[in-house]
Amino acid sequence: MKGINPDFQRPGGPSLPNSVADWMNAIQKQGISGLSRALSLLENKKPELRKMAMQVLQASMPFAGKSQRIAITGIPGAGKSTFIEAIGSYFASKNYRIAILAIDPSSRRSGGSILGDKTRMENLSKLPNVFIRPSASDGTLGGVASHTREAIYLCEAAGYNLILIETVGVGQSEVEVHSMADALVLLTIPGAGDELQGIKRGIMEMADCIVVNKSEPPNQERAFQAARDLKNALHVFPPHPYGLDVQVKMASAQTGMGIVECADYILELIAQAKSQGTFEKRRIEQTQYWLKEALNQTVMQGIMNSKQASEHWKELNLKVEKGELNPFVAAQLFWEEVQGKFKQ
Amino acid sequence: MKGINPDFQRPGGPSLPNSVADWMNAIQKQGISGLSRALSLLENKKPELRKMAMQVLQASMPFAGKSQRIAITGIPGAGKSTFIEAIGSYFASKNYRIAILAIDPSSRRSGGSILGDKTRMENLSKLPNVFIRPSASDGTLGGVASHTREAIYLCEAAGYNLILIETVGVGQSEVEVHSMADALVLLTIPGAGDELQGIKRGIMEMADCIVVNKSEPPNQERAFQAARDLKNALHVFPPHPYGLDVQVKMASAQTGMGIVECADYILELIAQAKSQGTFEKRRIEQTQYWLKEALNQTVMQGIMNSKQASEHWKELNLKVEKGELNPFVAAQLFWEEVQGKFKQ
Repeated sequence: MKGINPDFQRPGGPSLPNSVADWMNAIQKQGISGLSRALSLLENKKPELRKMAMQVLQASMPFAGKSQRIAITGIPGAGKSTFIEAIGSYFASKNYRIAILAIDPSSRRSGGSILGDKTRMENLSKLPNVFIRPSASDGTLGGVASHTREAIYLCEAAGYNLILIETVGVGQSEVEVHSMADALVLLTIPGAGDELQGIKRGIMEMADCIVVNKSEPPNQERAFQAARDLKNALHVFPPHPYGLDVQVKMASAQTGMGIVECADYILELIAQAKSQGTFEKRRIEQTQYWLKEALNQTVMQGIMNSKQASEHWKELNLKVEKGELNPFVAAQLFWEEVQGKFKQ
Repeated sequence: MKGINPDFQRPGGPSLPNSVADWMNAIQKQGISGLSRALSLLENKKPELRKMAMQVLQASMPFAGKSQRIAITGIPGAGKSTFIEAIGSYFASKNYRIAILAIDPSSRRSGGSILGDKTRMENLSKLPNVFIRPSASDGTLGGVASHTREAIYLCEAAGYNLILIETVGVGQSEVEVHSMADALVLLTIPGAGDELQGIKRGIMEMADCIVVNKSEPPNQERAFQAARDLKNALHVFPPHPYGLDVQVKMASAQTGMGIVECADYILELIAQAKSQGTFEKRRIEQTQYWLKEALNQTVMQGIMNSKQASEHWKELNLKVEKGELNPFVAAQLFWEEVQGKFKQ
């Protein structure tokens, strides 16, 4: 299921829109199925479809940027899906139009997935103002996150005004998810000592809000202890880059305890950032981050699309691994070869 | 002074070595002045000198990798230079050959510099087995750190077996310095609350050892408090990626208190990592990091060396900043243009 939209060129199904205007119409007028097909378009690698995807992305710009983007991260087992179901249901009751996206860089390797099993968000997925999209299946470095970033633009063009991005706090994804959210929520569980094992170092300091989930009985004591430890730890952390007062909340997605407080607090954080001007500043810095990422990825993929170039790079890589070749020299040799080949 | 070696092509001075063998001879036989000139060669942008630099780097490979590399980071005012002078003098007394390098990405902007004023390490700079090199002046993104990484290879080829890398814990430098050291020491000062202001979030979790410097009277109480807070904070941190037990030490570079303990502890950390196999693992991961960095930097700089390309990119940038153009579309447009130009 992951990353594959059954509506996209299904045999006997409707044919693909074949102009930018038709795609925009699908996104803005045909509900979930139109948006789903457009997100699959983004993930398609065929050059002509990729070209169309870029045009659709560009056409979405006037409608983009108007949502609130909230990222939720935490190790497997922290209860991310249940938490998103709980908090998402509350947001839905406040009449937000909610799109839920996932970044799971490990999904290719482990076969595991976030949001892969939509039934885990059974109630949420039935609501008319909620759109749930599993993680893209592009396994290239940075590919999944880039697709998610692109997907945000289309969801916004489709009228969704609250984007929830779910990610596993492992691998490189934390910087990337931090670079696409207005607020990053770190989900932990009672008994932080062992349970934080899977979280990558560094992510705790990026969080705008920390939630101790699963604080329901019989975990109250341990949850309280975990929250106190986290609060103490935050004391010695450097101040938040955008001046937020990072708080630790206790909640239980299972019983609903603390969910409304968490949800309201997250919205309040974003509202605060807006009134202080840091919201806009953060968005600008994020755009700069993605511009640089997009440039690197596009150019490198463009170059490595040449079989000759990618095989040459593999050879150089091997020599570096063996300690025979200096990494900087390898890069220089590669560039000289690529440059020469282009010029022929 | 910064980054400019007065011995490099000084009018009336000795002429430049003009073969790889001569350069290697200069590095390995001509002491500090030979190494200094080779490091300046690395920083020179002239294509023919850059080419020679790459050959020298490659020729250094058989002699590289055999040192212990220790990075020291902390905000301005944490006492990095004094700490390095103290710890370096101790290492020197143990007959290490010590090279001290600096990464200061802000030096171009602020005019401030680390190690810019060698007199701050007056005693150390007089020792025959100590080499001190100020921060390179290359202002390009990642340029200074790359040069430092390259410099490590040459220092090792010159026979230095303990490399101290000084950096300011701001900007992007922490990931880069973390990617070139066997041990990263974070220097803090008593009264962590306010004084940690300048440290970038994330760096605390990368440290292999945290030192509360300036713990001499009358700061003992506050130092003790800071150390206790830091220890408590470490409790809720995820485990160290290489399984180290991160410790907090109190020291005073000014009085010498705790310096020997710090120095011995850092060496012990590295020895532990060696016996557990994580030393080699970390080095391999670092090489992979730098290989990727070198590839990106070399290719991007190669492309942007074309005035036409860099001006086109600036135009696209402006449109993205104004919100008129999607970042991913900008990257695609740029690549199409560059690719076309190459093929002409």
